[in-house]
Amino acid sequence: MDFSAKLSAAWAKNDSLLCVGLDPDLDKLPKHLASSTDSLFVFNRAIIDATTDLVCAYKPNSAFYESLGADGVNQLKKTCDYIRENHPHIPILLDAKRGDIGNTNEHYAQFAFDYLGVDAITIAPYMGQEANAAFLARADKGIIVLCRTSNPGAGEFQDLEVDGKKLYQLVAERVSTDWNEHNNCLLVVGATSPTELADVRTLVGDDITFLVPGVGAQGGDVEATVKAGINQQGTGVIINSSRGIIFASDGKDFAEAARKEAESLRDEINKYRN
Amino acid sequence: MDFSAKLSAAWAKNDSLLCVGLDPDLDKLPKHLASSTDSLFVFNRAIIDATTDLVCAYKPNSAFYESLGADGVNQLKKTCDYIRENHPHIPILLDAKRGDIGNTNEHYAQFAFDYLGVDAITIAPYMGQEANAAFLARADKGIIVLCRTSNPGAGEFQDLEVDGKKLYQLVAERVSTDWNEHNNCLLVVGATSPTELADVRTLVGDDITFLVPGVGAQGGDVEATVKAGINQQGTGVIINSSRGIIFASDGKDFAEAARKEAESLRDEINKYRN
Repeated sequence: MDFSAKLSAAWAKNDSLLCVGLDPDLDKLPKHLASSTDSLFVFNRAIIDATTDLVCAYKPNSAFYESLGADGVNQLKKTCDYIRENHPHIPILLDAKRGDIGNTNEHYAQFAFDYLGVDAITIAPYMGQEANAAFLARADKGIIVLCRTSNPGAGEFQDLEVDGKKLYQLVAERVSTDWNEHNNCLLVVGATSPTELADVRTLVGDDITFLVPGVGAQGGDVEATVKAGINQQGTGVIINSSRGIIFASDGKDFAEAARKEAESLRDEINKYRN
Repeated sequence: MDFSAKLSAAWAKNDSLLCVGLDPDLDKLPKHLASSTDSLFVFNRAIIDATTDLVCAYKPNSAFYESLGADGVNQLKKTCDYIRENHPHIPILLDAKRGDIGNTNEHYAQFAFDYLGVDAITIAPYMGQEANAAFLARADKGIIVLCRTSNPGAGEFQDLEVDGKKLYQLVAERVSTDWNEHNNCLLVVGATSPTELADVRTLVGDDITFLVPGVGAQGGDVEATVKAGINQQGTGVIINSSRGIIFASDGKDFAEAARKEAESLRDEINKYRN
């Protein structure tokens, strides 16, 4: 099953547009886990088991594993393996924001798709379509390109005007057409800017799915995000929350607390879908 | 010693502007090494020992290690540790082209500077200065921002015109001024476009160093690159070659062959410095 079909099935099965970001910052883990071996994986496993019927995807961010070096990367792999083996219907998005020249990207694609076995990866657009061919050629995988990001300073380059269009609009146009030969491209559009989210939806039509970070800890409004981002079918978005869910409690009830937050956010999102 | 001082000392000590890219693609390693444990590290160690008096820097590209997963990352660390312990005067540039929101970049900075212990990292500009604060705050490290890259399709976004300037020119201006509060910013400008290289040198003046990939396998011309890129002091560039040097031979003489290529390229670069 390709990424798009797997995502659609997860949207439907769990009636959910919610993605949980697996960003297990060691400093924020529940105290009783922080010192154990494989603590990132043990933490993730509990979060995953507690939320698997509430989400349309999991999104581990590579940085939170890389900061622990080879051991962290090993725990990232264990996390991806665990999801694939125990919850095979939930797609895994690797948030890695990679982007290099062609033969180098081939190695990043191997890391994501062959070593970790994830279903999708985030990449950066700056080096262009030609550089990213190794990702785009993976027809069965989701290639999620940064378009308008959720950080406060996103506009520094993304909002620059080029022939009456903003750079992020041009990225949206190029990615949704030329880059999208295999119908495997998605866009990152942040929840912190619903105006830009609505704008990109209008630009690219209903067939491109958005990964939408920025609700929760980053301050994006759920109602505005859903209304601006969804397509005519009431889907077309993967709304991510990381810290707001996984660190809902730092006690022994952390997984239960995460479930509660995930359920509440899933339901709040659904309230605005129609 | 901060990055800039370490680089200047290496330029002077080895009379070299040459950087060797440590991109040990498993498929291209000498056959007698390919199946051994830690083959990437064993390969790198031989290349390093054979070239340490000829280079101003080593640049491992993270992708070539990540594609082997946790084991590859471990070999990347061993490579960095080996250089630091045995050739401490040679700066290590981690080519990783990272770029995410603030708290995530903090983890990428930890990977590069605290876990691997490298002296500099390449980053992508698309998310802006604010997102990259965690890198830029490392005053003693080199922060090398993509400006005009060496790939054939680099111009897709980088050459777009914004108010009469190209996007890469705007990136060069912003990075060399606002981003450069700690005087720790460098720019990536490819050898495959000497016109853009000369243009960026004129724009940013003599104090910003360029990492220049693209000579050798990618086809950049050495004479044009040196003349377009160097500053008034005859330095200001780190000219990288990876495949052209490290895969000069796939026999047992690979390190010797790499030394020969490195020496020849170092000398050719020096011929055009004055």
